[in-house]
Amino acid sequence: MANPVLVEVMRGAVVESRHRGAVAVVDAEGAAVLALGNVDRPVFPRSAVKALQALRMIETGAADHFGLTDQELALACASHGGEAGHVAAARSMLSRIGLDASALRCGAHPPMHVPSAAALCRAGAEPTTLHNNCSGKHSGFLCLACMLGADPRGYIEPDHPVQREVKATIESVTGSAIPDDRRAIDGCSVPTWAVPLKALALGFARFCTGHGLAPERAKAAARLRAACAAHPWYVAGSGRFCTEVMQRLGARAFVKLGAEGVYCGALPERGLGIAVKCDDGGARASEVVMAALILRFGALNESERAWLDRLLRPTLRNWNGFAIGKLHPTEALS
Amino acid sequence: MANPVLVEVMRGAVVESRHRGAVAVVDAEGAAVLALGNVDRPVFPRSAVKALQALRMIETGAADHFGLTDQELALACASHGGEAGHVAAARSMLSRIGLDASALRCGAHPPMHVPSAAALCRAGAEPTTLHNNCSGKHSGFLCLACMLGADPRGYIEPDHPVQREVKATIESVTGSAIPDDRRAIDGCSVPTWAVPLKALALGFARFCTGHGLAPERAKAAARLRAACAAHPWYVAGSGRFCTEVMQRLGARAFVKLGAEGVYCGALPERGLGIAVKCDDGGARASEVVMAALILRFGALNESERAWLDRLLRPTLRNWNGFAIGKLHPTEALS
Repeated sequence: MANPVLVEVMRGAVVESRHRGAVAVVDAEGAAVLALGNVDRPVFPRSAVKALQALRMIETGAADHFGLTDQELALACASHGGEAGHVAAARSMLSRIGLDASALRCGAHPPMHVPSAAALCRAGAEPTTLHNNCSGKHSGFLCLACMLGADPRGYIEPDHPVQREVKATIESVTGSAIPDDRRAIDGCSVPTWAVPLKALALGFARFCTGHGLAPERAKAAARLRAACAAHPWYVAGSGRFCTEVMQRLGARAFVKLGAEGVYCGALPERGLGIAVKCDDGGARASEVVMAALILRFGALNESERAWLDRLLRPTLRNWNGFAIGKLHPTEALS
Repeated sequence: MANPVLVEVMRGAVVESRHRGAVAVVDAEGAAVLALGNVDRPVFPRSAVKALQALRMIETGAADHFGLTDQELALACASHGGEAGHVAAARSMLSRIGLDASALRCGAHPPMHVPSAAALCRAGAEPTTLHNNCSGKHSGFLCLACMLGADPRGYIEPDHPVQREVKATIESVTGSAIPDDRRAIDGCSVPTWAVPLKALALGFARFCTGHGLAPERAKAAARLRAACAAHPWYVAGSGRFCTEVMQRLGARAFVKLGAEGVYCGALPERGLGIAVKCDDGGARASEVVMAALILRFGALNESERAWLDRLLRPTLRNWNGFAIGKLHPTEALS
């Protein structure tokens, strides 16, 4: 059965496009608060689980041993825009373990932050691995490798101790054993593991409450959440959805985009974990869905509701800046 | 009822994303050869009907009067990449009517052709209206305005003679009267009119055969088709799907991308018109669907089938260039 239409794209008064998807909202016991569409289907969480991938860096003591700042912890959980401050923080993380950009195996791409990409281009410079939106996560992996006494080379391989620990962490937090045939390669070349949407939501409910986690893990999760809430600019960047939400709501919401229409998050006040997958991979829709879930479950006050409307029903503009339409969530989400 | 899944996005061995959509393939009498999903629903064709929008420029004699070349006719039908040759051709079209880039009302955006955008940026230059992918179409509209003796200012307005003639042409060619509430504003600020998918397919079947068109219109259509077949680089640009298909198949296929997951086209040898709408607006899927339809209906020889495979099942690569998955059409299309 087809997943429901979650977001409509309006051009004038006509629905131009439609995004279907699935949504799981669960509490830390795994009880479903909302389940739309197929929440049992394994989904690659992609970058939405960077905070879970960073847990071992805290738990092993790597973060303390190498003296990582809270900004750097936030960057380890980030899909950042490659703005100057992001690049500097990634470089700083690497310098703490005596490495530099050449150790990163994420590949290079132009900054996602358009003005930063233009500035780089105007300067006649090529993008480096530090500009890759995953450079903070990779720098964190390298810190973990050093802490484990493992050879930092090859840290992106599925059999490297870093990726084995990361996989075990995701399995444990989501309560979902992952067979090997659900492994694929992420955009930044590390393994990505497909996990049922409802298990991802459970993982984030646990991440935000500590329920069901060992004490050390609960503490590590709280530390990463606090770092992201204190420094949301490092989690994404200027004008980005994740950053704007956490700048406004602080520790009351943890949200993280993943590629191909994934969004994960948590509402710690409510003890809820959230996982969204837009079937077609459309990020524009997954953002609207996440905004709708924050509206519904986030216990917002009136001023916060007014602020959220811009993310809930974003206006579409053309090359002349004319407002030509908007996105909006469907009834399925209200 | 949901439209069928037409394209799957594989990451490793797992389906990561799914694109649904509708497909209409009809002959010039309007007989359905293939109908998948809802082909009655009005769809904004966006840039996919640029060739239909250019018909009046030929029929009124504007193209001959102003001495437009075949390359310029192809550019009038184009969503071009803003490469140097595209920009020069648009400038040339405008010069023939004594105008320049300041007359274009399409807005400016960086060239879609990435190396051209980078070159512009490195030169410290800003994109102009000539780089807009629609600058050829708009230059054609201005030629038509001049031929009609209409004020070229305001040519993007729905009530301007140019847009009234364009609307009447689309209604006539597609055989579909368009009520005013199906009008919206396109990315380049001209009106776009939602038309049922099967009517769009009929329009392209007529466009490619001349059946059902007045003799002057059939002649104009043949001239535009020939211009695009002779100069496919001007219809899109380096590395683009439309260009690659028409470079390989010449006059045997006319294909044109539209924004938000639309593809229209025609297979003149078979007398068939094609219209595709990917529900979610995903261009990557509409290209695969069009490739699948060319495979199925295009009477390809073995070497052409081998060539098409790269467009039918495009490999996805990450920032390191690793092959991490591919797109493929589903059974629904075979």
